[in-house]
Amino acid sequence: MSETIAFVGLGTMGLPMAECLLRRQMRVVGYDVRPAAVAKIIELGGSGAATAAEAAKGADVLVLMVVNADQAEAILFAGGALAALSPAASVILTATCAPGRVAELATRIEQTGRHLVDAPVSGGVAGIRDNTLTIMASAPRPVFKRVEPILLAFGRNVYHLGEKPGQGAAMKIVNQLLCGIHIAATAEALALAERSGIDAKIALEIVSGSAASSWMLKNRGPRMVEPQPDVLSAVDIFVKDLGLVLAAGQSSKMGLPLAAVAHQLFLSASGMGLGARDDSQVIATYRALAPKGDEA
Amino acid sequence: MSETIAFVGLGTMGLPMAECLLRRQMRVVGYDVRPAAVAKIIELGGSGAATAAEAAKGADVLVLMVVNADQAEAILFAGGALAALSPAASVILTATCAPGRVAELATRIEQTGRHLVDAPVSGGVAGIRDNTLTIMASAPRPVFKRVEPILLAFGRNVYHLGEKPGQGAAMKIVNQLLCGIHIAATAEALALAERSGIDAKIALEIVSGSAASSWMLKNRGPRMVEPQPDVLSAVDIFVKDLGLVLAAGQSSKMGLPLAAVAHQLFLSASGMGLGARDDSQVIATYRALAPKGDEA
Repeated sequence: MSETIAFVGLGTMGLPMAECLLRRQMRVVGYDVRPAAVAKIIELGGSGAATAAEAAKGADVLVLMVVNADQAEAILFAGGALAALSPAASVILTATCAPGRVAELATRIEQTGRHLVDAPVSGGVAGIRDNTLTIMASAPRPVFKRVEPILLAFGRNVYHLGEKPGQGAAMKIVNQLLCGIHIAATAEALALAERSGIDAKIALEIVSGSAASSWMLKNRGPRMVEPQPDVLSAVDIFVKDLGLVLAAGQSSKMGLPLAAVAHQLFLSASGMGLGARDDSQVIATYRALAPKGDEA
Repeated sequence: MSETIAFVGLGTMGLPMAECLLRRQMRVVGYDVRPAAVAKIIELGGSGAATAAEAAKGADVLVLMVVNADQAEAILFAGGALAALSPAASVILTATCAPGRVAELATRIEQTGRHLVDAPVSGGVAGIRDNTLTIMASAPRPVFKRVEPILLAFGRNVYHLGEKPGQGAAMKIVNQLLCGIHIAATAEALALAERSGIDAKIALEIVSGSAASSWMLKNRGPRMVEPQPDVLSAVDIFVKDLGLVLAAGQSSKMGLPLAAVAHQLFLSASGMGLGARDDSQVIATYRALAPKGDEA
């Protein structure tokens, strides 16, 4: 492949994803607001840029590994990245966004002759490491086919959900509903174990191997029973994502009672000042209301 | 092993569990209210009895694979099964019960010189088939040791949570909290997919392989997208189990908001007349309020 891929957003997820492309000998020009991340991509064999527009200059593909639609829009339009791309370039948007918002962005991008690939991902850093990342893409088929090798470099579970931008986003919302509820449910269960006088680590071992298990339970549970876990994904990300889930429910007039409760729990953790902490710390809301018991 | 094991309750779970014992050449005398189930255990190489007390007569161990503590109590006391057992026999109670209730039963059993092993299980019929059943036991160590070969015949994940009856039950409650929430969350997610115009089978395939996955999602999800699934565990079982979860929260003064919502959903499915249907049919509550959309 001789195309140039601009990669904007080299954070916890972005950097290892860009590395996946470099390992497949793809040409990557990286940009991040943190110069240290740009230095890292150069160290790994890529090129660096001082702005998103500079990274995008003449590139055939722009990967936007950013947090939300607002950031994507700012980089593409105000930041000039879209106009800097080659004339028929594709923009791969991996952020979790409202489906309607993705459709709007696609229309504005198509007006310049370029294309949007709606491609949210699920599986986190562990998914990249184990090559189990799931990519939920939607785009016109020829556009999807052109970027498919890039998506497959990120993870083996690549789905083409349809031709309309927003269909990937809608599927990601279904996915995030489950992820958010499962993290909060793990917190509720482990806090109940603690309150009942059961060692939370033993409880976690049991439910990890029983019908009570979930991917999130096995991934976030261990960080709930550690005193100061690393931040792999922040509480405020789920405040945002479950907010998008509820907005999707609202726009299709569908009540989502479990997602609504899970959202309140992440929101409360954020209100406790834990918004930037690891999302496993949603368990703090339970511990605040029901401290550990000592009866067996 | 030359001991005789009385096995009461040969339903969806009980029959294959009794079969596990027979496969290990253990001597089993089975009883169930349905004569067909008793005939089946004889066909598999066990013995049959006409009442629970007859099955228990002179037995060293009584396995009670019944639905709740009320049934266990009726069989043991009013039904005369406890008095029929050998003088130092053990009673293995696998039902999901309130921890306080298990402790009460243990006291009454110990007054006759016999012992209770609190041993709720998780993993369902699939867990028996794959030898992945989880058993959460509590009993004085010598009592536990004596029945451990029987528990290991049921499944490889046998945990001894403590010496006090009720500790197994408390752990099972933590387990059921997760199981119940995960089934309801799967229903919420798949119903949202349907409402959003996504094929629920494709959505299920995606979330089965992503960070959104859970044991229950993979087990119950397929039965949510089938028109008339078999009944492997009924809606009303989770009305009961999540009721026990909430009672445990109440007794330790702990709010369990996700479990409370999940309980309401199973209760609503039961209210729709679906109490005896497969628990995957909790999805009917969502479909009733938000029928499938046709916009993509």
